[in-house]
Amino acid sequence: MKQTIHLIAISGSLRAASCNTALLRAVQAVAPSQIKVTLFEQLAQVPPFNPDIDIETVPLLAQLRDQIVAADGVFIASPEYAHGVSGVMKNLLDWLVSTPAFVNKPVATLNASPRAHHAFAALKESLTMMSALWLETASITVSVIGETTTIEAILCNPRLCAELRKALAVFTELQLEVAV
Amino acid sequence: MKQTIHLIAISGSLRAASCNTALLRAVQAVAPSQIKVTLFEQLAQVPPFNPDIDIETVPLLAQLRDQIVAADGVFIASPEYAHGVSGVMKNLLDWLVSTPAFVNKPVATLNASPRAHHAFAALKESLTMMSALWLETASITVSVIGETTTIEAILCNPRLCAELRKALAVFTELQLEVAV
Repeated sequence: MKQTIHLIAISGSLRAASCNTALLRAVQAVAPSQIKVTLFEQLAQVPPFNPDIDIETVPLLAQLRDQIVAADGVFIASPEYAHGVSGVMKNLLDWLVSTPAFVNKPVATLNASPRAHHAFAALKESLTMMSALWLETASITVSVIGETTTIEAILCNPRLCAELRKALAVFTELQLEVAV
Repeated sequence: MKQTIHLIAISGSLRAASCNTALLRAVQAVAPSQIKVTLFEQLAQVPPFNPDIDIETVPLLAQLRDQIVAADGVFIASPEYAHGVSGVMKNLLDWLVSTPAFVNKPVATLNASPRAHHAFAALKESLTMMSALWLETASITVSVIGETTTIEAILCNPRLCAELRKALAVFTELQLEVAV
């Protein structure tokens, strides 16, 4: 088994007080020492996807692709807008479709709202189509509403933290399986 | 009945040789004289949607919203990427969700590929959620592949042109119904 498990976390919201981003920061905070979670923080700088543009000419995206390829897995938490995946999240995925980024990559999608089932299903569909290994047991729906929309509030909620630790543990188990 | 029917056409692809954009240019070309189709050509300039930003501070989007509100209908033709709506198309819709743009607005979605059923369904779902009046009979699937991916080729195909004219006629019939 590898010493450290590297995960990339991507939030599909640009809102400063995004509960999806807060959820991923909480994942970072509760991760055991052998799991390192790196949050992708440049979503606002991702240009609109144009199939005519070579990803190699967009350093931000070429770098993210390489980081995902090198990582042991990816955590995605994205809001639902108008019964669909947020456009900014899907735009990022569109850039990575024709790359090896998600091929056989273990991916967990966190859903911050039980009502956001359209986006959750659509995200799973796109990731699976991109050959990702979508982790059902790590792709949990939690209810980050009301008083638990900040990282501080999430970290003060033992039930939520336990659920996030359980999702993280799936990646550890996966590494153990690979090592066997 | 109004003298002229104004429609806004939006392509969900930034590819220079996009068959979706070609399809909408063909709609423009075959439209009868009483229908004016205006193509939105600034998709590449639409910033990533951020709910913290007021649409009034983004003149391009505030203007598009007003144009759609004033229009009699909208034609959308969008590609499918990774079994989903193109991110750039969804990003544009995300900006318009909390505006009156699509409320009771007659909208037709053109599908350039019979295989792109995921994006077609997702687009319909989002538009319906945004209170658009989705026109089933004008939302046609045509097969713009191979030799018919340019506007010239589409215009040389009488069957395709007839289908586009039929889709346009739905907007005229709708105006007649409203006028009655």
